[in-house]
Amino acid sequence: MPAGTLRFVTFEGGEGAGKSTQIRLLAEALRAAGQSVEMTREPGGTEGAEQIRKLLVEGAAGRWQSETEALLHFAARAEHLAQVIRPALAAGKWVLCDRFADSTLAYQGYGQGLDLEWLWTLRRHIVGPTEPGLTIMMDLPVEKGLARAETQQRYERMGLDFHRRLADGFRQLATAEPDRCRIVDASRERAVIAAEIAGLIRERFGVSL
Amino acid sequence: MPAGTLRFVTFEGGEGAGKSTQIRLLAEALRAAGQSVEMTREPGGTEGAEQIRKLLVEGAAGRWQSETEALLHFAARAEHLAQVIRPALAAGKWVLCDRFADSTLAYQGYGQGLDLEWLWTLRRHIVGPTEPGLTIMMDLPVEKGLARAETQQRYERMGLDFHRRLADGFRQLATAEPDRCRIVDASRERAVIAAEIAGLIRERFGVSL
Repeated sequence: MPAGTLRFVTFEGGEGAGKSTQIRLLAEALRAAGQSVEMTREPGGTEGAEQIRKLLVEGAAGRWQSETEALLHFAARAEHLAQVIRPALAAGKWVLCDRFADSTLAYQGYGQGLDLEWLWTLRRHIVGPTEPGLTIMMDLPVEKGLARAETQQRYERMGLDFHRRLADGFRQLATAEPDRCRIVDASRERAVIAAEIAGLIRERFGVSL
Repeated sequence: MPAGTLRFVTFEGGEGAGKSTQIRLLAEALRAAGQSVEMTREPGGTEGAEQIRKLLVEGAAGRWQSETEALLHFAARAEHLAQVIRPALAAGKWVLCDRFADSTLAYQGYGQGLDLEWLWTLRRHIVGPTEPGLTIMMDLPVEKGLARAETQQRYERMGLDFHRRLADGFRQLATAEPDRCRIVDASRERAVIAAEIAGLIRERFGVSL
């Protein structure tokens, strides 16, 4: 793998794309291969960050300014990086994370129209050298994902147009950073998707699952 | 007053400096002079911002990374600006605010050691053209202020050295922006201080109280 590549794998994509299932399957496969794994999620992952998460996922769709929302996501992320992600990586663990900074770019940038350059400024400052070594973008037609989504929390209620801008944003992010990001067709059987992800892990980190 | 000067007056300084008393006295004097006044405070000032405030003022002194803390303060500020401060100014009201962006510079920058240039980047982005027309820096020896402070919440418990760096930070901010900031000796009788502040309002905005 390229020098400096962190064993930090993030899963991104719209609602209902099967991210948490694939994280669980990858964690099982890594553990079966003798690897130590930390599974986590955003927003959240620490006690304080979960309190911030509650502010973000509950309540009316229009309860926050988009600027506020981006700052709250990066605030939760700063906690998560300092208390969970960086210590786990330093201890030699793999970190598998359900959503990370690309979600803020997609939701608050492409979805809600915040300035992308500003979001990248925040990202560079808060994430710094802890960018994922691999990002799996789970791609699924928007209608299909929303129909599958298990909850009807704040972001799920934001409307079809919003979710289309989101899906387009994830694709643009993946195109802009082809070394880090891989788009995976999430409409297939979960075992087929898991096998493709195992191949991406081998290709990126040289670990056979 | 200089063109573009907003009738937005912020009160800054350490704990126990008498900011809320002086805000109340100034509001009374402005109202007696026929002016319309909005009194508010930070962190807080809106329902969402008050929820963020709770995360900041409660709990253990070391519960947040300093980076997180700065983002939470600016998140609450973005709400406060959009929902309270800008609408009140647009409606022709004076806005008197107990703490504003200088507190974040002083507490998280000078007090907790965050990069000042980064905090200014956040400030320029979130506050934009809504910088106060006048900032009153209430200056008081640190020991005296802490003895007077009415609560023992998170920031009050951060220790004497922290509060000394804070006081020094406010003085440096005032020195760096002499047009906007005025240092007021807060160790005197409250009526004496109120008279001095009335003079500053006259000098800055041309309104006699």
